[in-house]
Amino acid sequence: MTDHDTPASAAYGVHSEVGRLRKVLVCSPGLAHRRLTPTNADDLLFDDVMWVENAQRDHADFVNKLRQRGIEVVELHELLAQTMALPRARSWLLDRKIIANQVGTGLIDDTRAFLETLEPRQLAEFLIGGLATTDLPDEYRSAYVSMARESTGVREYLMPPLPNTLYTRDTTCWLYGGLTLNPLYWPARHDETLLMKAIYCFHPDFVDSTVWWGDPELAWGQATFEGGDIMPVGNGVVLMGMSERTSRQAITQVAAALFKSGAAEHVIVAGMPKLRSAMHLDTVFTFADRDIVTLYPRIMDSVHTFSLRPSDRAPGLSIVDEGSASFVDVVAKGLGLPDLRVIETGGDVYASERQQWDSGNNAVALEPGVVVTYDRNTQTNTLLRKAGVEVITIVGAELGRGRGGGHCMTCPIIREPVTF
Amino acid sequence: MTDHDTPASAAYGVHSEVGRLRKVLVCSPGLAHRRLTPTNADDLLFDDVMWVENAQRDHADFVNKLRQRGIEVVELHELLAQTMALPRARSWLLDRKIIANQVGTGLIDDTRAFLETLEPRQLAEFLIGGLATTDLPDEYRSAYVSMARESTGVREYLMPPLPNTLYTRDTTCWLYGGLTLNPLYWPARHDETLLMKAIYCFHPDFVDSTVWWGDPELAWGQATFEGGDIMPVGNGVVLMGMSERTSRQAITQVAAALFKSGAAEHVIVAGMPKLRSAMHLDTVFTFADRDIVTLYPRIMDSVHTFSLRPSDRAPGLSIVDEGSASFVDVVAKGLGLPDLRVIETGGDVYASERQQWDSGNNAVALEPGVVVTYDRNTQTNTLLRKAGVEVITIVGAELGRGRGGGHCMTCPIIREPVTF
Amino acid sequence: MTDHDTPASAAYGVHSEVGRLRKVLVCSPGLAHRRLTPTNADDLLFDDVMWVENAQRDHADFVNKLRQRGIEVVELHELLAQTMALPRARSWLLDRKIIANQVGTGLIDDTRAFLETLEPRQLAEFLIGGLATTDLPDEYRSAYVSMARESTGVREYLMPPLPNTLYTRDTTCWLYGGLTLNPLYWPARHDETLLMKAIYCFHPDFVDSTVWWGDPELAWGQATFEGGDIMPVGNGVVLMGMSERTSRQAITQVAAALFKSGAAEHVIVAGMPKLRSAMHLDTVFTFADRDIVTLYPRIMDSVHTFSLRPSDRAPGLSIVDEGSASFVDVVAKGLGLPDLRVIETGGDVYASERQQWDSGNNAVALEPGVVVTYDRNTQTNTLLRKAGVEVITIVGAELGRGRGGGHCMTCPIIREPVTF
Amino acid sequence: MTDHDTPASAAYGVHSEVGRLRKVLVCSPGLAHRRLTPTNADDLLFDDVMWVENAQRDHADFVNKLRQRGIEVVELHELLAQTMALPRARSWLLDRKIIANQVGTGLIDDTRAFLETLEPRQLAEFLIGGLATTDLPDEYRSAYVSMARESTGVREYLMPPLPNTLYTRDTTCWLYGGLTLNPLYWPARHDETLLMKAIYCFHPDFVDSTVWWGDPELAWGQATFEGGDIMPVGNGVVLMGMSERTSRQAITQVAAALFKSGAAEHVIVAGMPKLRSAMHLDTVFTFADRDIVTLYPRIMDSVHTFSLRPSDRAPGLSIVDEGSASFVDVVAKGLGLPDLRVIETGGDVYASERQQWDSGNNAVALEPGVVVTYDRNTQTNTLLRKAGVEVITIVGAELGRGRGGGHCMTCPIIREPVTF
Repeated sequence: MTDHDTPASAAYGVHSEVGRLRKVLVCSPGLAHRRLTPTNADDLLFDDVMWVENAQRDHADFVNKLRQRGIEVVELHELLAQTMALPRARSWLLDRKIIANQVGTGLIDDTRAFLETLEPRQLAEFLIGGLATTDLPDEYRSAYVSMARESTGVREYLMPPLPNTLYTRDTTCWLYGGLTLNPLYWPARHDETLLMKAIYCFHPDFVDSTVWWGDPELAWGQATFEGGDIMPVGNGVVLMGMSERTSRQAITQVAAALFKSGAAEHVIVAGMPKLRSAMHLDTVFTFADRDIVTLYPRIMDSVHTFSLRPSDRAPGLSIVDEGSASFVDVVAKGLGLPDLRVIETGGDVYASERQQWDSGNNAVALEPGVVVTYDRNTQTNTLLRKAGVEVITIVGAELGRGRGGGHCMTCPIIREPVTF
Repeated sequence: MTDHDTPASAAYGVHSEVGRLRKVLVCSPGLAHRRLTPTNADDLLFDDVMWVENAQRDHADFVNKLRQRGIEVVELHELLAQTMALPRARSWLLDRKIIANQVGTGLIDDTRAFLETLEPRQLAEFLIGGLATTDLPDEYRSAYVSMARESTGVREYLMPPLPNTLYTRDTTCWLYGGLTLNPLYWPARHDETLLMKAIYCFHPDFVDSTVWWGDPELAWGQATFEGGDIMPVGNGVVLMGMSERTSRQAITQVAAALFKSGAAEHVIVAGMPKLRSAMHLDTVFTFADRDIVTLYPRIMDSVHTFSLRPSDRAPGLSIVDEGSASFVDVVAKGLGLPDLRVIETGGDVYASERQQWDSGNNAVALEPGVVVTYDRNTQTNTLLRKAGVEVITIVGAELGRGRGGGHCMTCPIIREPVTF
Repeated sequence: MTDHDTPASAAYGVHSEVGRLRKVLVCSPGLAHRRLTPTNADDLLFDDVMWVENAQRDHADFVNKLRQRGIEVVELHELLAQTMALPRARSWLLDRKIIANQVGTGLIDDTRAFLETLEPRQLAEFLIGGLATTDLPDEYRSAYVSMARESTGVREYLMPPLPNTLYTRDTTCWLYGGLTLNPLYWPARHDETLLMKAIYCFHPDFVDSTVWWGDPELAWGQATFEGGDIMPVGNGVVLMGMSERTSRQAITQVAAALFKSGAAEHVIVAGMPKLRSAMHLDTVFTFADRDIVTLYPRIMDSVHTFSLRPSDRAPGLSIVDEGSASFVDVVAKGLGLPDLRVIETGGDVYASERQQWDSGNNAVALEPGVVVTYDRNTQTNTLLRKAGVEVITIVGAELGRGRGGGHCMTCPIIREPVTF
Repeated sequence: MTDHDTPASAAYGVHSEVGRLRKVLVCSPGLAHRRLTPTNADDLLFDDVMWVENAQRDHADFVNKLRQRGIEVVELHELLAQTMALPRARSWLLDRKIIANQVGTGLIDDTRAFLETLEPRQLAEFLIGGLATTDLPDEYRSAYVSMARESTGVREYLMPPLPNTLYTRDTTCWLYGGLTLNPLYWPARHDETLLMKAIYCFHPDFVDSTVWWGDPELAWGQATFEGGDIMPVGNGVVLMGMSERTSRQAITQVAAALFKSGAAEHVIVAGMPKLRSAMHLDTVFTFADRDIVTLYPRIMDSVHTFSLRPSDRAPGLSIVDEGSASFVDVVAKGLGLPDLRVIETGGDVYASERQQWDSGNNAVALEPGVVVTYDRNTQTNTLLRKAGVEVITIVGAELGRGRGGGHCMTCPIIREPVTF
């Protein structure tokens, strides 16, 4: 039992990529994925529609497997419902969501009135799943609705659906003892971070967390940052993929903030080629054990590496172009290891391309040498097992259609350090 | 027992869309699907890659369910292997595949020599799955291979992979007592029809079949024809979708051939909108019982209908523009029914669009009132069941990624008539 | 000479679409268009690259033709240079452009230092044309530049190129006696409005203008608004296209602001289909005389029309769905005219589609019955002339490649009213 | 004066890339380009629509400049009209165009009857420009037309428009003393070669030409070949780009045919990256003088080179992988030159990419050191001039929209050799 003066969040922190996972945030598929159609999937950043019931089943199995390992799993709809049960939090969030710039002048009062009638869980469903004009009961529908219905795409919605919440990895990152509230690249995902801010501002289990950087109420311009690119690997090192979605403008700000607080001493930047199949570092490179990584060589071979370190002079960081040194070698050195053992994506040229696409390298470690991956990447899984890694599989037929696996679907909140 | 003078094919014929199915051709997923990658999937007309092992499992289940109903199921790799066991057939096909225009001058002799070493089953695998330059053993590799490897896409192959053979519906159509050997729309599929011609020319179970129209050794220009658009519904009527893939140039030729032989008396043409989601008539409209159809109204509502009937004057057919009459009404009238019962794609506006995309309307009937569909289209399946149709489901997670369901994956060879 | 107590801007205002044009803002092609390549053109919203020298020649000819009609033409680079000559304005703008979120931590000081060395005109060139890392002289290049060069697209720039400034119509709109500072749809264009705010805040000819709505320093969410969709046609009426780029969220806010100040009494909303070829109302519908419009019927026929009018009750406006009434009829009625004479895009089905694409309907009136259009739309121009309209042509070969014509390239600042 | 027993074609032949040009085939823009719309441009392989009248003006200027240099210019519409004036030729061609596979059963007789009423020049216009159903006069319109009108794209046409005839370079190639009738890559262009065969079979100036390879009445599978990739540079050498459009399957066949006849001794193959901007070798590499080439280094640097030479053993050619040797060096050596002088595409990184896109490297030589290029590529033109090359410019604003310049728009028929 916690002393009432010590917030739960005091114990939070992620100190490695493979240390024992203690607490993790996930988000179940739901209403947002019921909104996906072949027409809007692209706009919502999904490659295909999914069978939501089966995606829910497979996600529940994933959660069960985490819990069976003793990991505390918290779920976004639930956290948000608990938060929305607090009148102050509800007001705070609805004051920021139900505004003229989003729902439109003329629809604010009715929309707010309808939402105020809802139970916290129902409200959380609509906050994540989106509120279509057709969801408004008749008594809350005015003439303004007709004009809204002539709009298309996300503008038809009074609150947008947020199906990418499934990938909790991106929105916030715990980096050692504090977190970032990330400005995401695509406008379609911006509101995800606002929901997380509501939780971190009001939910009793999350208030008083240390925030290194980020605030969804501010504008961030080119400074976008997504957790799929970020790995606090331990030893004071953080890996950051510089990708389409995570920019140097954000990377350098976060690095400076970490260095200033002493939370990290070395940021290793992976300058990624700009490809859909390599949208985040964790789609082509993840850790399976202290010294084992799985990676997709066709993309990792063209990474250009930089090292950022603290500096006494403004802006508080210095930069080294690692030139022709391989990313894997720079990481090994940063961790104080002689080298990393590398498990490449398995199979022939066709199979490895297919498995990378199907999140074959997107492993999430539960503890050193134990990872969760999708069942379908049988050849990569076999190679991991041959290297002594325990591989727990989950069904990827539906969950993988947004191009993310176990690593993308988890946001570690407490993870122990490892020694190198 | 068949009289030895009567070929097996004498009994072949498809006399309806829902009469008892007696014999059907399918094709299992295999090597061709192992060639699919995110990079080449578009060129090979697939929306996504598939987990081949699971696709094979799900396809085997489909075949078992057909066999449990007493249907004779023949499989393309097996038929082709049996055909390739016949030296004359093997020579005929390799003479047409291993030519300078396909494998390239300089690679003909080695490629042919390698293929001649193979068992019939192995040869059939490569004929359907494609032969990459990397498949050639060292002793068959000359300097010419290096230039081939600099080519990309399908040109790297010595024989192209044919993953769309999975959809046996398209390549040949039995229409009452004879068949068509279809010129397919996309060049990537042309060789499928050549394989079928080898079977119909040489396989003892298929020789002496009546061919109404089509020959893969001839050029067909704009006259392309795909079985997914074609339905011999009975009562002398054939439905033909005029789509991106099935052209008026082909439709009128086939209609004239059917009328001339007396095989049909009425061709009802559905002028389809040109959309990827409606590539064939059977992706938006199929029969579930004598008088029950399932359809996707958002597309079927914009169909423009024509009727073709025999004429004494050249070119042997007359044409009537059905104007504003609905396709469903013209079909009902053609069958002598007062009307058709229509089961629309189920669910709200999001779900119905998703289910049509996931082959929700692509039902295949095993007998009147008994259909096979994908499990994932639960709402459409429920509506069919409520209408009294027996719905047998198969797993669509992998098989559906090429945008085809049970109807697309079956080429009926013997189907009984029904009475209206 | 103006009385020193009366700002120049006191006389500003746009009271019609065809009244005598007195003062207008344009922007010459320049450095921003030299940045366009086949690779980045899409991201910068251009369909093709242009020959900048010829585009400049053709634009100069356009400006000359305006001036020969006695119109005062002001040019954006010049206005911005004049503004940047004011130390307070320069500081204000650079404080907002040279920030960590845009240029990146570590590059701020050097970039700012370099820009401070520039003459106002040079600075204006880079503000509009973008500042690439390669533009930094050696003495301002630190190690941080190497990481910037590994970024791609607009993130390689320290200030982004703004080639769409060519279309001054979109960024600000004078609506009767005041203006809007528009939140543009695409992030690639956001900074255009910031430049305009600098001018309206500091340039002596523009300060003290009345701003109805908009501020580029605030976030606008779904409330995006582009001048190409907006037409203050007179008689207290404003037409607003509800398009991909101009949303109901913005339209209703602007309408409420106009109604509140008494600047307008009727906003007619054209609910547009969402197509690239119809991105703004003025790409398919413009005025050529008091009662003459030119329009592209294939798109205008599918417009759904709404009327917004002042209301005593919050939010200050009422809405009427005009149902099946044609947009043209609603506009005529709003202007108090019995009807509008309509000049459709000329030529056969191929030519009219081509001319709409080439900005054939994007006429800008200099006075009633006198318009400027591109030379290439000969058939539409002929129809306008036959209707008695004087048509002045300019060369569109290069200028039209961003899909905009004379209407898009002009932002009227003073235009007289007309009587109906 | 030619002896009446000696056909004109006896003198035909192209013996270099830069020797004096004596006779050349071009094709003026016309009806086919009036068919281009934003909707169909992609299908017809054009990036944008063009202003046909100006394209015609600019093309006429190009032809005049060729004639002023004493070059005999023949034009495709005229040659085809002269050919169609011959009853036997007209029958031959219409027998191959007006067939069920193209116009459709039921429309053959009326279409043929209408075409038979036309003057040869009118007929040539429709053969190149396409025949739409709307072009059929009322007295030739039967009920079958209604079904044709429901088809879309090229299938609505009774004869397809062939706008790419503008690029006469691709369809046939004179290689030393004989020619190839090329199977083009895109089905949309196949009929171009049929028109050329009609001319070479029947036109008195062209009959009895030596054909090395190719026949549009045969199927060629993967063996596609386009003149933009082919350069008979002299000294018995032919350069061939192996690209998306020109395949190894065709290259090796043509090489074997040339070697067999003794027409060439060395084929140098440029294995090109597969990019739209590098669709043909001549879009990134052409000759300006005996020893001067202009090229785009970003693409040419990644070319992989092979050499084909005659061999006594089947299939009559041997192949050498040139490995890391640069294409330019292999070519210089093949020509017996110490090296080639290279003029790279001019300007900074943005300008050079833009100029390559705008056909900056697509120069056509009229004699050694004299080339025609587009006016817009000023920087590359300046570099050529500085190297001593005489550069004659033509207007590219419209003609360049199909991504081809002077080299693409010319098919040399007589060009003298040069000495090296």
